Amino acid sequence: MEVKAYGARAGDLPLESMDITRRQPGAHDVQIDIAFCGVCHSDIHQVRSEWAGTLYPCVPGHEIVGRVLAVGEQVSGFQRGDLVGVGCIVDSCQHCPDCNEGLENFCDHMVGTYNSPTPDAPGHTLGGYAQQIVVHERYVLRIRHPENQLAAVAPLLCAGITTYSPLRHWKVGPGQKVGVVGIGGLGHMGIKLAHAMGAHVVAFTTSGSKRAEASKLGADEVVVSHNPDEMAAHAMSLDFILNTVAAPHDLDPFFALLKRDGTMTLVGAPSTPHPSPNVFSLIMKRRSLAGSLIGGIAETQEMLDFCAEHGIVADIEMIRADQINEAYERMLKGDVKYRFVIDNATLAA
Amino acid sequence: MEVKAYGARAGDLPLESMDITRRQPGAHDVQIDIAFCGVCHSDIHQVRSEWAGTLYPCVPGHEIVGRVLAVGEQVSGFQRGDLVGVGCIVDSCQHCPDCNEGLENFCDHMVGTYNSPTPDAPGHTLGGYAQQIVVHERYVLRIRHPENQLAAVAPLLCAGITTYSPLRHWKVGPGQKVGVVGIGGLGHMGIKLAHAMGAHVVAFTTSGSKRAEASKLGADEVVVSHNPDEMAAHAMSLDFILNTVAAPHDLDPFFALLKRDGTMTLVGAPSTPHPSPNVFSLIMKRRSLAGSLIGGIAETQEMLDFCAEHGIVADIEMIRADQINEAYERMLKGDVKYRFVIDNATLAA
Repeated sequence: MEVKAYGARAGDLPLESMDITRRQPGAHDVQIDIAFCGVCHSDIHQVRSEWAGTLYPCVPGHEIVGRVLAVGEQVSGFQRGDLVGVGCIVDSCQHCPDCNEGLENFCDHMVGTYNSPTPDAPGHTLGGYAQQIVVHERYVLRIRHPENQLAAVAPLLCAGITTYSPLRHWKVGPGQKVGVVGIGGLGHMGIKLAHAMGAHVVAFTTSGSKRAEASKLGADEVVVSHNPDEMAAHAMSLDFILNTVAAPHDLDPFFALLKRDGTMTLVGAPSTPHPSPNVFSLIMKRRSLAGSLIGGIAETQEMLDFCAEHGIVADIEMIRADQINEAYERMLKGDVKYRFVIDNATLAA
Repeated sequence: MEVKAYGARAGDLPLESMDITRRQPGAHDVQIDIAFCGVCHSDIHQVRSEWAGTLYPCVPGHEIVGRVLAVGEQVSGFQRGDLVGVGCIVDSCQHCPDCNEGLENFCDHMVGTYNSPTPDAPGHTLGGYAQQIVVHERYVLRIRHPENQLAAVAPLLCAGITTYSPLRHWKVGPGQKVGVVGIGGLGHMGIKLAHAMGAHVVAFTTSGSKRAEASKLGADEVVVSHNPDEMAAHAMSLDFILNTVAAPHDLDPFFALLKRDGTMTLVGAPSTPHPSPNVFSLIMKRRSLAGSLIGGIAETQEMLDFCAEHGIVADIEMIRADQINEAYERMLKGDVKYRFVIDNATLAA
């Protein structure tokens, strides 16, 4: 069926209203009426062709929440009216070791929610800036938050799982001191989640003006990373650092804050490389630099349930679909606290 | 007492014969008659002041083997005539968490075998290019190899533990495919040790001429790393990579060979940084880049016992003390298979 969407016809054109086609739900499909869709930095990179291989028309959006409209005959886990979410993944091979371990995010045939190959028209996936989406039940998440929080749940589907997964993988918990570098869409979730996991959270920002906000988000301490004295006060004291900053920056001052055997995990991918880390930073205390990519479906459900239980949602600013181009400009200036969310009801206008 | 040694009086002077003073053995000391001393690349960096802070006269050498001459009254673990070794560490604080865990190599007050502060004359430690050394019993290792292998045991004290420790820490063993990058002093030990631990070992070299040698050392496969086809054949198949190359080089082609959750550990420290790794190399498969620094005393003993049990020693070329300057030049050209060892009896000449 045809639905309204917002997307771009080329990398140098603004996003505009367009009609797209969704497939008829198959036996294992869930047809979802999208209520809200979060706006991720990846959306901008992809729609503007700043990453290789953008296919047009491009409809971004992979922080999707809404209600089930209909389900295929084989679907047993969902029914009409359920509150559900869809994140960055809408398909994968379903039989490789990664898929079998519930790590569909690392499957070599993972199908992204937008810009990935699909048999459906127009031959590549179209994302959540749309009235509806049809997704195989395996990739549909259940939302247990109260309905009045639904819009603020949307960013959990990417920003939430991208920060939750490495915090869990590197076993962050009580008794640990954990750094979160950057207080933006990802970082603000990292602070909330690490705090809820029981860690002592140190937030790092380049902007002294974010001190009070970071404390409100759950940071026990806030460090202005350009201040060497503030940094030195935490030397060799952190068990783990979640680095959410995508802009190229010097990693060495952060390594110096890690204990022996500590890890700094990057979840932001800079468009040009970070300055090369000093090998001595790694060798002298057996430290590691790692990367992490969203999370698997089972872990995404675990994250949503964890957030529902702890009353965690994203801090958002709601926009109409026709404000998306302006929102992109504001995001590039860092002018959002901390995530724009599209009210998809405005697509009908 | 005074003993003969070989050292340098300044960074731009060759090494020469000199007399140095060793302290009288204290209650916990072991006085050792040094039979052989391995020649490590660190020796060159330090003696030539290529690292900061070299103190002169500088007597290098931290791959020391010999026989106990005398022990202090409180020493119970060693007696005159025992075959013993001393590696990179001759003292540490003995009470920090690192020391308490047997990781003296990470103690902030670790005293290196040469160029570290000491109350003994001349105020900094002097290494194993000498007839004798006096060391606290905690830092003396027992050697269980047959005496006729003693010279070839010497390099285990640095090259051996530097490669053994990360292989153990990252749990290399049967069923695993492990890469060893570089076939030199460290790399040739890495191949032997990983093979003895039961892993399938893939050796990486820039020189096709080392193929046969690498197989003889225990490599199951040998890859010329400049050949993209040979590299591609191992894509995403390695559990762990031990990278022993100190020269700056592109790390990304090696990351591409690691499985999900794989780690590449650096044990060589380049004098200028490696090209900055591509963050996507880390993120896409949750890979890690780590560093490792020699090993603790207990683990060094474990390594020596493991090597004695498996008949493992280094491949060496023996030299007289007065050949050391020439040996350094040959090492800088990579012209040694794979470690020079000084016959310390020649110091008396």
